[in-house]
Amino acid sequence: MWVTKMPRKSKSKSKSKKKKMSDDKKTLTDWISGKWIENIRKIRPPKKAKKLKLPENVHVVQELSAQELHKKIHELTRKLTKDILTKGEVNFEIPTRSAGNVIYDEVNDLLLLGNKTFTRSLLSLRSARESAMTMRVLELIHYLIEENIHATKREVYYNDPALFKEQSNSDSIIEDIAALMATPRDSLHVVAAAKGAVIGRLKFKEGGDEIDCTKQGTGGKSITPFIDTITDIESDAEFILIVEKDAAFLRLAEDRFYNKYPSIIVTGKGQPDIATRMFVKKLQRELRLPVLGFVDSDPYGMKILLVYSIGSKRLSYETMFLATPDIKWLGVLPSDLDKYNIPKSARLKMTPADIKTGKLLLKEPFIARRKKWARELSLMVQTKTKAEIQALASHGFRFLTQEYLPQKLETADWI
Amino acid sequence: MWVTKMPRKSKSKSKSKKKKMSDDKKTLTDWISGKWIENIRKIRPPKKAKKLKLPENVHVVQELSAQELHKKIHELTRKLTKDILTKGEVNFEIPTRSAGNVIYDEVNDLLLLGNKTFTRSLLSLRSARESAMTMRVLELIHYLIEENIHATKREVYYNDPALFKEQSNSDSIIEDIAALMATPRDSLHVVAAAKGAVIGRLKFKEGGDEIDCTKQGTGGKSITPFIDTITDIESDAEFILIVEKDAAFLRLAEDRFYNKYPSIIVTGKGQPDIATRMFVKKLQRELRLPVLGFVDSDPYGMKILLVYSIGSKRLSYETMFLATPDIKWLGVLPSDLDKYNIPKSARLKMTPADIKTGKLLLKEPFIARRKKWARELSLMVQTKTKAEIQALASHGFRFLTQEYLPQKLETADWI
Repeated sequence: MWVTKMPRKSKSKSKSKKKKMSDDKKTLTDWISGKWIENIRKIRPPKKAKKLKLPENVHVVQELSAQELHKKIHELTRKLTKDILTKGEVNFEIPTRSAGNVIYDEVNDLLLLGNKTFTRSLLSLRSARESAMTMRVLELIHYLIEENIHATKREVYYNDPALFKEQSNSDSIIEDIAALMATPRDSLHVVAAAKGAVIGRLKFKEGGDEIDCTKQGTGGKSITPFIDTITDIESDAEFILIVEKDAAFLRLAEDRFYNKYPSIIVTGKGQPDIATRMFVKKLQRELRLPVLGFVDSDPYGMKILLVYSIGSKRLSYETMFLATPDIKWLGVLPSDLDKYNIPKSARLKMTPADIKTGKLLLKEPFIARRKKWARELSLMVQTKTKAEIQALASHGFRFLTQEYLPQKLETADWI
Repeated sequence: MWVTKMPRKSKSKSKSKKKKMSDDKKTLTDWISGKWIENIRKIRPPKKAKKLKLPENVHVVQELSAQELHKKIHELTRKLTKDILTKGEVNFEIPTRSAGNVIYDEVNDLLLLGNKTFTRSLLSLRSARESAMTMRVLELIHYLIEENIHATKREVYYNDPALFKEQSNSDSIIEDIAALMATPRDSLHVVAAAKGAVIGRLKFKEGGDEIDCTKQGTGGKSITPFIDTITDIESDAEFILIVEKDAAFLRLAEDRFYNKYPSIIVTGKGQPDIATRMFVKKLQRELRLPVLGFVDSDPYGMKILLVYSIGSKRLSYETMFLATPDIKWLGVLPSDLDKYNIPKSARLKMTPADIKTGKLLLKEPFIARRKKWARELSLMVQTKTKAEIQALASHGFRFLTQEYLPQKLETADWI
């Protein structure tokens, strides 16, 4: 059915295209009525709302190209040099990264930085060391940008361990510079290691190489931490499916589920790292597709969904770039266990720690706001029963791809 | 220089080819004299020795195709059925998996199974449950083979949790059946999850998809746990480089190190999982290339090298399929810290636990046998100093790819 669907126009101001892939194969199957495609399209995120008129003295935090950042660094250094010559002092005015000064506009998916700043003076005894470190990190980032390469936080630290003394010092300075440049950290070419994988109806360029995720065997493509090197995203998928576990990812990959239900399948292999979360966010932002989450039916699985959805609990400058809004919980829902007749022997008793975590989650405003999530979580805590994704194999190895997921999609059974 | 090298003939009885890749680009650089290529070729593993005449009653454990295994399962079940009808009893004769009955022939890289067996009778009260589980697992494996799909151990367990009760029971039966069929576990299509990645001068097919590892951006290709689906391995690389950490892998990938020094770069992202170890072994077996290890200069890094080289300490039926013999320790050698002037501030003090682990390792026969490894490890323990791979960044982000590794290769500075 997906071969006849209407092409969607790509998001404005984006290099990505949602076009027909050249190597499509018709994979119609008799056992799918096609109701799912209506269901999925109903939950497509809206095309981006128009930009609000911003209040004064508020800056939009946005990704910068290497060229833009390079220019900004040079402007800053010119200003600093001029200050030395004319005023005889060098001050950094760095926006504070506290919650009060960072506003997330959920409707427009924008991060705004207020006008609260603090001063770091090279001539003050108190902040001379911080200023020296700031200059040093700025120099290192300038090098990364000029060479067009990337580095981890740890490598930045090791470039001058005698100066930084502890990695936490260079890490903190890196975030300061990100705020100073009003850009997320990865635009500074400073990244973290990644362990996620992707497969499905998706093509993109990565460092110039063309990657076709329909031709990645069963292991999929390793997600690069250099998210800014990913360009020219193309897809004819209808949705993005986040899978908690590698085993389920492999089952979906081996059965080429993504060709029957045109989709992009991502796994963070457990707790997702920063790169995997940025990757999912970038896909959703560029392709404007619904995102469905498929995790174990236990508090840990729910936490993984939350990490993708709202980031870690601490609403920091950094994590706000990583949240993918409006993820739907597809499964395994606690109510699925009865609905799909998962045998008692395949269900697990929750530990006291599980139950405690579940009860704490129920008190979170984010859960309370989503009444259906709260209801399912309550059911889990009340029945003191959890289950892994693999418990679905109690109906056979392919129950997952041939019955469970099709039925979930056909009946819009997500919350 | 590598564009003019002599093509190597592929290993006999292998589908792999070592041929010229069609998309080669000449990447000669002035700062490399080319001595490294002589060095590397000196440590190439010998072409496979001729098979020894095997002693009687010894079976070679070998990979089986789905077709071969399918045939063996049918033969076994026919025999069992016949036994019921003629003898009125059903006995499994299962080779014992104890060290005494499993011999590893290092010269020929062969695993041999002796003629010690134990009997599992369906009619004995003592082993009726084990026999029932054996039949059930055999049935599940038969299904996997017929459908040509793969599953994890956990999924096998969940197919009948009421029967197996604990996953350790189904796991043990799976290993029994592997021994019964004289084949490694992955030939049964039962696999474990994987987190490794590969990049470099390597092409192969994975589940029919053509994978070109020179075109995998910076993240590389995720290694599939379904190693048996990897076929048609081609490479013009001179060596395989195992890298402990993702950060170093990314630096090598971003600088396309593998084009300057034709190589295949693999990372297990820390402690390597079974699939990554099988993948490295398969590459070495098919391509007959030297394998160099690049890990942190600490006891944990050394342990990672050992896991690739000899498997985990327990010499089990399973781990013997995973060992890659004769890995060279390229770096970071404890003596490199002075040789490459790594500043004191980039070196770390070993913890008491580190020192204890180091001393225990020195007592291992495997270390004692490799005198140069023992000497380096002694130096580490004596100086109580360790260092991470990233400490090389104290000479700049690209010191690793532009100076350290080239010099190591040029001077054959591995042990």
